[in-house]
Amino acid sequence: MLTDWVKGAAPAKATWMLHRAFEQARKELADPRVSQVLNWLAAVVKVFRGWEMERSESHLIESRAYFSGDDDLCYKTIVRHFENASRYVNVCVFTITDDRIADAMVCAAGRGVKVRVLTDDEKAFDVGSDIEWLQRRGVEVRTDDSIHHMHHKFAVFDGEVLLNGSYNWTRGASDFNEENIVATNDRGLIEQFQKEFDRLWRAYS
Amino acid sequence: MLTDWVKGAAPAKATWMLHRAFEQARKELADPRVSQVLNWLAAVVKVFRGWEMERSESHLIESRAYFSGDDDLCYKTIVRHFENASRYVNVCVFTITDDRIADAMVCAAGRGVKVRVLTDDEKAFDVGSDIEWLQRRGVEVRTDDSIHHMHHKFAVFDGEVLLNGSYNWTRGASDFNEENIVATNDRGLIEQFQKEFDRLWRAYS
Repeated sequence: MLTDWVKGAAPAKATWMLHRAFEQARKELADPRVSQVLNWLAAVVKVFRGWEMERSESHLIESRAYFSGDDDLCYKTIVRHFENASRYVNVCVFTITDDRIADAMVCAAGRGVKVRVLTDDEKAFDVGSDIEWLQRRGVEVRTDDSIHHMHHKFAVFDGEVLLNGSYNWTRGASDFNEENIVATNDRGLIEQFQKEFDRLWRAYS
Repeated sequence: MLTDWVKGAAPAKATWMLHRAFEQARKELADPRVSQVLNWLAAVVKVFRGWEMERSESHLIESRAYFSGDDDLCYKTIVRHFENASRYVNVCVFTITDDRIADAMVCAAGRGVKVRVLTDDEKAFDVGSDIEWLQRRGVEVRTDDSIHHMHHKFAVFDGEVLLNGSYNWTRGASDFNEENIVATNDRGLIEQFQKEFDRLWRAYS
């Protein structure tokens, strides 16, 4: 009965209802000594509930997608994450030609952020490619050595944010195509992509 | 003091510790009437905690990435989601040439699943493209009408799963490239991608 009632209730009511339960207990047992113990119990329960809430909140996953036409948020999101990076950025992107992003990468490297890039060998030396320019400015680059494509478009920022999607770091992607980027703090995904970066970084050494 | 202690404790200990608090209260107030009320309170607290746990679990986001070399899990994941689909699949993928996936799409459509495809107009009629074949077998297709790329590689299954990443639905992506697919049940992302599908479906009508 109570179980069903609680399940049906609005979340905000939970604390109030629990409070009422303790009040009811106090009323039933009108005795100062009992009241004292009940107050202690109520405090204990409050601590546990706070801790449980906090625990579930600390696991909150926040993910957001950005699409073409979203007020240039695709490339701006990439630039912003380079601006916010403090330790390292591991980039694994098929093709990089957008100078606005390349500038942000070099700025980050200049601040001491360790920026590493995995990219496709054919694309790396296309007209307009920023790869050589990045290398000359302190960004460590490795390319695949294959006729096939290193086709990923992801980056891991400080082990805290993953960007991934269809979006290559090009003006075409930014200005003309239909594209998406997903930004997430999902630890499981970040670990998986970091591991994939490490595997390819070793493979392309 | 208690707050700090609880915060430092292992999660599994929480229930045990709360149980101990009630036992302690019962010991302090050795009286059958008090015990009865305390038992009632303990039951109330248990119900609330169960409800809170369940609430936080019902919001659990599960995401997983699949990479090239992962035992063909990229294309197999796509096929499996078509096999599991029961109502509809909205596909928005740059290029589709992998017959194993196309077969799964047609099988789903044959079972009454509403399969809709948005794809790139240039890629749609490439040699090996499955688009025309899909259309002839009951899959509704729309293409962009632009020299630029409809470059997404995502699909929404029954509004419950999103697949997205660098992976085009081709044999090249499956057999040779370095690629990724992320599968997620993240409702926020699913909504964002569904909205993007709807926008493009209208735009390409």
